[in-house]
Amino acid sequence: MTSVGIDAVELWTGNLKLDLAETFAPEKGDDPEKYTKGLGLRASSFPDSYEDIVTMGANAAKRLMDRKGLEPDDIGRIDVATESSFDNSKPISTYIAGCLEQVYEGDFHHANKGERKFACIAGTQSIDDAYNWIRAGRNRGRKAIVVATDTALYERGDAGEATQGAGAVALLIDEDPDLVELTMEQGYGSADETDFLKPNQQFPSVDGKRSVQVYLARMREALEDYESVAGDVHLEDFAYAPFHTPFPGMVRKAAALAYRHVTRDTEHEEALAEEIGRQPRRESFDDDAEYEEAVREYMSALKDTDQYREWYDATVDPTLSISRDVGNWYTASVHVARIAALKYAYENDRDVTGESLLVASYGSGAQAEIHGETVQDGWHEEIAELNVDEQVAARYDLSWAEYEEVHDRHNHDMDKELEEFTTPNEEFVFDGWGRMGERKYTYVE
Amino acid sequence: MTSVGIDAVELWTGNLKLDLAETFAPEKGDDPEKYTKGLGLRASSFPDSYEDIVTMGANAAKRLMDRKGLEPDDIGRIDVATESSFDNSKPISTYIAGCLEQVYEGDFHHANKGERKFACIAGTQSIDDAYNWIRAGRNRGRKAIVVATDTALYERGDAGEATQGAGAVALLIDEDPDLVELTMEQGYGSADETDFLKPNQQFPSVDGKRSVQVYLARMREALEDYESVAGDVHLEDFAYAPFHTPFPGMVRKAAALAYRHVTRDTEHEEALAEEIGRQPRRESFDDDAEYEEAVREYMSALKDTDQYREWYDATVDPTLSISRDVGNWYTASVHVARIAALKYAYENDRDVTGESLLVASYGSGAQAEIHGETVQDGWHEEIAELNVDEQVAARYDLSWAEYEEVHDRHNHDMDKELEEFTTPNEEFVFDGWGRMGERKYTYVE
Repeated sequence: MTSVGIDAVELWTGNLKLDLAETFAPEKGDDPEKYTKGLGLRASSFPDSYEDIVTMGANAAKRLMDRKGLEPDDIGRIDVATESSFDNSKPISTYIAGCLEQVYEGDFHHANKGERKFACIAGTQSIDDAYNWIRAGRNRGRKAIVVATDTALYERGDAGEATQGAGAVALLIDEDPDLVELTMEQGYGSADETDFLKPNQQFPSVDGKRSVQVYLARMREALEDYESVAGDVHLEDFAYAPFHTPFPGMVRKAAALAYRHVTRDTEHEEALAEEIGRQPRRESFDDDAEYEEAVREYMSALKDTDQYREWYDATVDPTLSISRDVGNWYTASVHVARIAALKYAYENDRDVTGESLLVASYGSGAQAEIHGETVQDGWHEEIAELNVDEQVAARYDLSWAEYEEVHDRHNHDMDKELEEFTTPNEEFVFDGWGRMGERKYTYVE
Repeated sequence: MTSVGIDAVELWTGNLKLDLAETFAPEKGDDPEKYTKGLGLRASSFPDSYEDIVTMGANAAKRLMDRKGLEPDDIGRIDVATESSFDNSKPISTYIAGCLEQVYEGDFHHANKGERKFACIAGTQSIDDAYNWIRAGRNRGRKAIVVATDTALYERGDAGEATQGAGAVALLIDEDPDLVELTMEQGYGSADETDFLKPNQQFPSVDGKRSVQVYLARMREALEDYESVAGDVHLEDFAYAPFHTPFPGMVRKAAALAYRHVTRDTEHEEALAEEIGRQPRRESFDDDAEYEEAVREYMSALKDTDQYREWYDATVDPTLSISRDVGNWYTASVHVARIAALKYAYENDRDVTGESLLVASYGSGAQAEIHGETVQDGWHEEIAELNVDEQVAARYDLSWAEYEEVHDRHNHDMDKELEEFTTPNEEFVFDGWGRMGERKYTYVE
């Protein structure tokens, strides 16, 4: 059977930056390590006054098309994943296609365009929809573009304010992919939760503590579901484990939980037994409370072992390197983590061709999905073409007062005009409002 | 290859009704025929104070599951299509699954849940995503539920106010379907349009005239694209043509356009030649304006011919019978039209087993999709189980003053309390707000 997967990726960060240690922490009167160590974040990306989810998504998609030498006719499907949509009926994919049609010959009039919501699981669902469309033989030889784009803002003063971010990832889904092949098997963990939601509001209602619990519970459920179809997962099975990353600290918790799960009854558990004991088993305890306390103690000890740290540093930490500098991109989150992992391998001369990724997507509300991906021959060349570091380094560093203005500018309930901080160059920009209240865009040479 | 398609459908109308001729027209000082003949609408459905897109969708899905003897474990996927979502991050499918979990043993924790927007094309996209998921062999023997649910309200006084509606359709997608098999081929016509949109607002901005033009242009493009892969479409190829139905008058225009297209260079065109001439061809005219005027004259004459009327009455008019009484249901629109067509065949003792439907979906913003469906052996039994007429007849008939209160009740910018007009019975109801601003639901025995 022909392989199907992700042929190429591109990323576009918002052009502004808020430094958490230098700018955010002093203003809040906090120790910078609350953010850099606790959350694991150094900075957040923000959109300049001429940027939004459409410009960032279209800019990422244009880089993708240019680099892969694609014309609109090559594309049969454009799906956008976002939680920051500004329209309840017209999908963001139609705006993005409209942008791209300004700069390419031809059009996307025969491409199927849609929009999904559900944090980064919406990006993964869109990848899967494209994968299944190709596998079902309905693509007429064409490829699919998936764009995950978000402006992840919280209400000013909300506990989530330090985890904000803005950016987009564009992915090309195709047969014989150059980057990663997707496995057929998928595991889901999904429940009707109120951990994080946006009921008729732009900024989220978040129950921080509950949100962490739900993330971990759904991830565990997804992993168990995945194992029920793909067989038990072992530590040796995957080179990297990109997780949905609301902030790196969340992934640290999830990684430890995953490690405990996949090492149970393996030589890895045995190797740790002398140092921290074997894992608590429910049947050895009189009640849930005792058992849970024992698990907490085991986890706490586990995180301090060399064995766990080596695994974490090699398998999970590399997935967080971009996120640390750009914050939470909601729907693009796990897709940023995948890029970060492969970029790390590239920069450290590690050949991961043929190796696997264990990819864990998540959306609050809540659902986790776990699947495997196999790195393809072309990965090295693909990753070499990215300019992530240049983009991240080129952002304008906001002062606190400027940050406050930028937040207002992107608040849908305000009508804030703001001079741009950066000069757009070879990119799509927001260009004002049309007579129907629609947002308009143009390409700046 | 195993057939895949729609195994069963169910419909749930809002429990209230606004009579356009008796209540709406007098209040507006209009001739009732402006609505009953011009738009082709007799009444609109509205949600009672305890109804919304979640309750209507969950009620339709419960009827579907009960009738087909399904348990949560049988379902691997729940996608909701809606343009009336009240949450920017948490998909409506999670709310609906939460409702259903109140009344079934077991849960949907391993089902993939999502949400799409884009009028009724979002429903069709969700059906396709499920179809491709099954065809790709990733469903693990499970079925998919697609729910298209909307409360299609316009601003009070807007020209679209007479075309409002509220209801849901639930569809079961499965192998060896009882109702219709979907064809592999699909045609798309899609462009970045501002005919109808909801930029950060509940009620749409509509350019009525442009909206009609865009609907027709995208439909023509989709039909041409469909023919490029499925071969030329002929009148004899399909028993019914369910269209996206914002109001029946729109479908009358689209049907005439489709008829002209598919009869060109056929015996049907020849048969009409003596009465109204042959179809204008662009090459016979000096400029576009002359040609377009000739087309308008031909279309006007065409609609008055017996040949066209017979075709229209047999193939298109039956698809409108439900819509006439319930109004526009946005994402559920073409799916209501499909039910109406098969219900008509059932009631008129026409055996359509093995015959085809030409299904034309549409979403403003804008995109049309055209595909074929083949009616399956079990269709008669499936349609016999529906209680559409009973539901429509049981609605509470609103006075004008009551209508005004109901509209306010469902206006997201108002906080209007309202006593219910009907008594919920064996259905899910909205039950107030949770501490995170989430809507809560319960099942009333």
